[in-house]
Amino acid sequence: MSSSFGQLFTVTTFGESHGPAVGVVVDGMPPGIHVEVADVQRELDRRRPGQSALTTQRQEADRVEVLSGLFEGVTLGTPIAMVVRNTDPRSKDYDALKDVFRPGHADYSTFQKYGVRDHRGGGRASGRETVGRVAAGALAKLALAGAGVRIVGGTVRVGKVAAERRDWDQVEKNPVRCPDAAAAVAMAEVIAAARDGKDSVGGVVEVVAAGVPPGWGDPTMAKLDALLGAAMLSIPATKGVEIGGGFGMCELHGSETNDVFDGEKYQTNHAGGISGGISNGAEVVVRVAVRPATSIGKPQTAAAKGGGTTTIAIEGRHDPCICPRVVPVAESMMAITLMNAWLRQRALRGRER
Amino acid sequence: MSSSFGQLFTVTTFGESHGPAVGVVVDGMPPGIHVEVADVQRELDRRRPGQSALTTQRQEADRVEVLSGLFEGVTLGTPIAMVVRNTDPRSKDYDALKDVFRPGHADYSTFQKYGVRDHRGGGRASGRETVGRVAAGALAKLALAGAGVRIVGGTVRVGKVAAERRDWDQVEKNPVRCPDAAAAVAMAEVIAAARDGKDSVGGVVEVVAAGVPPGWGDPTMAKLDALLGAAMLSIPATKGVEIGGGFGMCELHGSETNDVFDGEKYQTNHAGGISGGISNGAEVVVRVAVRPATSIGKPQTAAAKGGGTTTIAIEGRHDPCICPRVVPVAESMMAITLMNAWLRQRALRGRER
Amino acid sequence: MSSSFGQLFTVTTFGESHGPAVGVVVDGMPPGIHVEVADVQRELDRRRPGQSALTTQRQEADRVEVLSGLFEGVTLGTPIAMVVRNTDPRSKDYDALKDVFRPGHADYSTFQKYGVRDHRGGGRASGRETVGRVAAGALAKLALAGAGVRIVGGTVRVGKVAAERRDWDQVEKNPVRCPDAAAAVAMAEVIAAARDGKDSVGGVVEVVAAGVPPGWGDPTMAKLDALLGAAMLSIPATKGVEIGGGFGMCELHGSETNDVFDGEKYQTNHAGGISGGISNGAEVVVRVAVRPATSIGKPQTAAAKGGGTTTIAIEGRHDPCICPRVVPVAESMMAITLMNAWLRQRALRGRER
Amino acid sequence: MSSSFGQLFTVTTFGESHGPAVGVVVDGMPPGIHVEVADVQRELDRRRPGQSALTTQRQEADRVEVLSGLFEGVTLGTPIAMVVRNTDPRSKDYDALKDVFRPGHADYSTFQKYGVRDHRGGGRASGRETVGRVAAGALAKLALAGAGVRIVGGTVRVGKVAAERRDWDQVEKNPVRCPDAAAAVAMAEVIAAARDGKDSVGGVVEVVAAGVPPGWGDPTMAKLDALLGAAMLSIPATKGVEIGGGFGMCELHGSETNDVFDGEKYQTNHAGGISGGISNGAEVVVRVAVRPATSIGKPQTAAAKGGGTTTIAIEGRHDPCICPRVVPVAESMMAITLMNAWLRQRALRGRER
Repeated sequence: MSSSFGQLFTVTTFGESHGPAVGVVVDGMPPGIHVEVADVQRELDRRRPGQSALTTQRQEADRVEVLSGLFEGVTLGTPIAMVVRNTDPRSKDYDALKDVFRPGHADYSTFQKYGVRDHRGGGRASGRETVGRVAAGALAKLALAGAGVRIVGGTVRVGKVAAERRDWDQVEKNPVRCPDAAAAVAMAEVIAAARDGKDSVGGVVEVVAAGVPPGWGDPTMAKLDALLGAAMLSIPATKGVEIGGGFGMCELHGSETNDVFDGEKYQTNHAGGISGGISNGAEVVVRVAVRPATSIGKPQTAAAKGGGTTTIAIEGRHDPCICPRVVPVAESMMAITLMNAWLRQRALRGRER
Repeated sequence: MSSSFGQLFTVTTFGESHGPAVGVVVDGMPPGIHVEVADVQRELDRRRPGQSALTTQRQEADRVEVLSGLFEGVTLGTPIAMVVRNTDPRSKDYDALKDVFRPGHADYSTFQKYGVRDHRGGGRASGRETVGRVAAGALAKLALAGAGVRIVGGTVRVGKVAAERRDWDQVEKNPVRCPDAAAAVAMAEVIAAARDGKDSVGGVVEVVAAGVPPGWGDPTMAKLDALLGAAMLSIPATKGVEIGGGFGMCELHGSETNDVFDGEKYQTNHAGGISGGISNGAEVVVRVAVRPATSIGKPQTAAAKGGGTTTIAIEGRHDPCICPRVVPVAESMMAITLMNAWLRQRALRGRER
Repeated sequence: MSSSFGQLFTVTTFGESHGPAVGVVVDGMPPGIHVEVADVQRELDRRRPGQSALTTQRQEADRVEVLSGLFEGVTLGTPIAMVVRNTDPRSKDYDALKDVFRPGHADYSTFQKYGVRDHRGGGRASGRETVGRVAAGALAKLALAGAGVRIVGGTVRVGKVAAERRDWDQVEKNPVRCPDAAAAVAMAEVIAAARDGKDSVGGVVEVVAAGVPPGWGDPTMAKLDALLGAAMLSIPATKGVEIGGGFGMCELHGSETNDVFDGEKYQTNHAGGISGGISNGAEVVVRVAVRPATSIGKPQTAAAKGGGTTTIAIEGRHDPCICPRVVPVAESMMAITLMNAWLRQRALRGRER
Repeated sequence: MSSSFGQLFTVTTFGESHGPAVGVVVDGMPPGIHVEVADVQRELDRRRPGQSALTTQRQEADRVEVLSGLFEGVTLGTPIAMVVRNTDPRSKDYDALKDVFRPGHADYSTFQKYGVRDHRGGGRASGRETVGRVAAGALAKLALAGAGVRIVGGTVRVGKVAAERRDWDQVEKNPVRCPDAAAAVAMAEVIAAARDGKDSVGGVVEVVAAGVPPGWGDPTMAKLDALLGAAMLSIPATKGVEIGGGFGMCELHGSETNDVFDGEKYQTNHAGGISGGISNGAEVVVRVAVRPATSIGKPQTAAAKGGGTTTIAIEGRHDPCICPRVVPVAESMMAITLMNAWLRQRALRGRER
């Protein structure tokens, strides 16, 4: 089950970046929820390439087809399979890479693992695999909305530029998907500079869930922190995750980081909405470290399959910073994780909400 | 299965901090491996309270009893159940906390989740639950050693003091478990100051696995990064995890962070030994953010169960910095995670190692 | 994960009988195995409707499309998604059944479970769901063949007619798929009589795996018997399963049913190749009880959705005996089960075979 | 997770028959349920050896100790670990068997699987492993009782003697645990004859759950039939399972086996309370085939570990018919299965019951 996430709301993705299609099967969507295909397509449009000058210029329409689980616009409670055809592969671009292990990529580790690989693009390790996650996340968001849970996300750092504000309404108004309009301008400049230098740059994405009631998550191995950690670090190109105060708390004292709860609300939220692995009623706040994209045009030394090294420059149309496109993916993984925690709590206590 | 970790090397812990016992069942330990109870006890001794002036002064011997799975000093391949009795509960200390939700603790979220709780100590959310993890980790380490994998760990930050060196032989020579002897002295001072101020302080623990061959881990939902993320964030008091370059990479360019592999070794290790979710042959490097301990003697405002607030000062014998005791736990979770990735790769490819 | 079977070779089916498509995702197929789409199609052809006068006259070509996991005719080790479009639904046939719960069918239980249902055909409970199982089983058979395991199956009882012989080469030579040519003729007559009487008849399907080495399966909860029991009883219309001597052993003594092993072979096989849940080297033998098909043309009393009862006669083209078409499904579930046991044993011991 | 059963109400057993202890961890017991240790002990007393002249004369008190998950007589919602010490092993009895593979036993398959085994008794394959199942089942029964579900079971066949009646109040009044007082006498004679002939005899155990509402179970891979099939065939010495009409339906027509539902109740129950894998509101009826016990005093030919054969007579105190002691185990596995189906349905629909 290495391609599945979640025990109760189970999301299983499939598809190589240059195979016939990518897709997902969502098992565990509750029945009786109104779903339009457009609800899914809208989220996929936020993820697809070619949205702005700051992302890859590949043009992929990424039209989703729903194969099962819906009947007359309502979920049946059965598995929902969704497929997106791969239409702009330009597989030829990759012929030169057949016998090279690109630096930073999964080429070498994949070959060592399987003894065989599809050298055209990243195969399963490609960002294209996240199409299925976003489609599944769209369903999770719809279901969670019925429970009063709303998820937002945005780019809060690019290179050395950090967002100071969390004005979530700004996110879809700038190509960086930054919740701070002023920082967004500076971030766009950093990304453009990386692009022009045939390079890439890293950043941080933050996702916040409001309306999560206390009681979701478990106290030990299945802490909500742990589930979110797995969810976020399963996104390609992520190398860190933190909840609430995160790494910043390491430099502080307990008297500073213990969130005081006055019986109605928390005066601070260092815990990121999760105490002892269980949601505590405050906003659930997660940040994920996104490394610089590994596909860059600058010449690099690479290992050759047959031994020795060679110099390569990865041509083609790649993202100079993938944060803007990671945002809907991270939101989706948050939604999928919370769906599982919610359904699990319903199993334990048998409550409607 | 909220108390279990891993599908093939499955670790299931049980026990409340003030119940009769804590323990673990390990299902999936390969047969024919020589195991002495002393191997397990030695690791538990690294975790137990009362080791130095920098940790809690509670005295718990934490003697482990093995109930199954061993026969004449060899693993049978069957579940290994291990139990440690709770011997020094001082449950009376907690009577005053029966109707109070301590700040930073899981008291409120636990009560909301279950509608009932054992108010004596942290229940399942207690650090005491990690006894079972360390016992299981001891077995995982033994098995991994047979595959040439060695795991080390240490405290690399306390408050604002960071370790500059990674001299792993130093770890057991100072009470902070720091791999930098000089930094260890400064860290000890920070911890002592927190203790004397009836406060606590946070830090960072790093764990490194050497000898992991390429090919462990999966490319999508079960990325080795994701499994390690879940493993680490399931440890009490952790609020962040990063692999290799982690959050630091967010400020860099791809030309700086792409690790060049010359066919034999990596010139850098920003990926922390994992490319596309799969081990790449370099050292696997993980850091975990440990928040300041939530039990502090300083007076704090706390919510009362019946409504309103009260002021509490948590007396008793608590850790001013839990990093030194998190080290064996984090090593254990790394070992448990790698065992699962290793066995999974054996299933996929059928290879001995 | 209610639509998935298996932890290591995970088969997830999707699709309603009258939705756009049915299909499957197979996660855990080892890499480097040569697979032709024709290998899958051949098995699907054994399952599809319209093969003889003894099965439903619906004509569905059931052409499979492989969406992922194959590259240049070789498995990549990644999920293999396969889809079959629904082309001959005649959904109109079902309009009259919208507000009726058919006897023997899952109409009522499905409606109670979900509060909503696709009344056109059986939805997920339809035999059509088994398309995905057979496609997955085709892959499992290919992989197992590489380990020297061969699976055969056939109809060994229809009504009161039982097969006396196990001449597996006969199976594809008669429309009943009976391994006893003489009994096949009598069985065909029983089926034709049921068909002509607008009725249906039950039977028994037997599946045998040769070449399974000792050591597959686990001693307690995951006994190979238990996995096979779940596999077989997950097939629509099955209501019983037995291993080896099965129910017949209940009337015997231990001195009769203990299989004597002389160090090289078993003199009898009452255990059906499984001792203490673990394969013992003898043939694995499973029989599954197939109830009479629930869709019959004879008038029946049925509960109406709004209350009260009505009389219905299920017109359309239904199977008078589903055993012939259950054979490839049962073989597939056997293959899928053995794949999981095999991969699990490789994980435990790390051996190639 | 080969020693675990169930995803939401997860039962993990441990312990060899001649190791220090056997036991179980139950993860997923809902919180707030009143549980006395005596409730568990009472069920264990029904399973323990030495209850009558018809069962083994070994005397094992099988006193259970609860290590976690209970606080002041109420479940906490956390894992409940329970342990029973092995007190009467007479391991010496087994010295002669160290280098022999007993016929019908799991000795050979276990050795082939693990390459090592505890030769004293059946190890994990021993009936003693079911102590943990019965302890877990006691908890499941308590929780289910709160949902109005009641489970009964009994021996309905021994050798050629079948029970004609289902008078469940009779079960605890005769040593065979037969729901037919007259048949019980005849069955007792059959068992005594087998015992006196140093032989054993098989039988059938039936388990019935009343009060299961419609909607439990899933339509495909996780059919309630399939879960029950796995549950029952995971019990030692079982080689068959059937639901409702079971194998008997194979000889009938659809017009005879389709259960007519008049909107309030079923006129027949061939489906055994499960339609399309989902409970339909009728009683859930399961029968399990119990083979003759493999330990018999009659001389048998056995394979020697070093090659060749030898003659053995298994002395000691063994059950001539294990049906009476399988009854509480089968009830327990039914209860554990239904708990999982119930919690899963709560997750899907969020309803209290």
